[in-house]
Amino acid sequence: MTTSPVPVNLADKLSQFSDLWSQKKIADLNDYEVKLAKLHGEFVWHTHDDTDELFLVVSGRLTIRLRDGDVELGPGELFVVPRGVEHCPVAEEETAILLLEPAGTLNTGDGGGPRSKAPEAL
Amino acid sequence: MTTSPVPVNLADKLSQFSDLWSQKKIADLNDYEVKLAKLHGEFVWHTHDDTDELFLVVSGRLTIRLRDGDVELGPGELFVVPRGVEHCPVAEEETAILLLEPAGTLNTGDGGGPRSKAPEAL
Repeated sequence: MTTSPVPVNLADKLSQFSDLWSQKKIADLNDYEVKLAKLHGEFVWHTHDDTDELFLVVSGRLTIRLRDGDVELGPGELFVVPRGVEHCPVAEEETAILLLEPAGTLNTGDGGGPRSKAPEAL
Repeated sequence: MTTSPVPVNLADKLSQFSDLWSQKKIADLNDYEVKLAKLHGEFVWHTHDDTDELFLVVSGRLTIRLRDGDVELGPGELFVVPRGVEHCPVAEEETAILLLEPAGTLNTGDGGGPRSKAPEAL
């Protein structure tokens, strides 16, 4: 087995970090990574040309700005940003999200810049 | 865009069906499917030889029996069953879960039998 038979408790994992805009890997699913992050404020506009990206809000509220309009997510709501679609995550309050995308997906996509950061293991 | 810019509300989607052991697709993520299901009782032992399988409990309690022991999941807890690992989901009470795995993954894996059922769109 590649995973020990212990469940991952999202609230417990979220209690283990406080830094913002830093993805924490909590599980692998084939060549995908399940990650948590805490957001507050505005990120950068970027695009993932090679992959869709799933956002699920655990607590707080997330706005995913798209060039076509905003998507507003509360707890228990998810949205998949299709590959190639420019987006900018914004959280007016501190917000916890679960992310799912292929391993190696850069948080800033094609945007690069100082906010690029690889996921960390929790 | 392959997805309309509307969030998927898990509670809303769960209110739209009541049949048990029937996977309902709520989103695509590349060649993966995000699905919901309601479980009550015991499923069948089976294995997915080609893929890991992610279970996230939304409400209720899920036991994933493994040959190595049981994994007990409550709301906000997830577990990835690694590929090739035999498992049997059991829910002592009605339980709602989110599932994530590649499109085309059969619910009964290699087990086949009368409980095999393709996912339905919600």
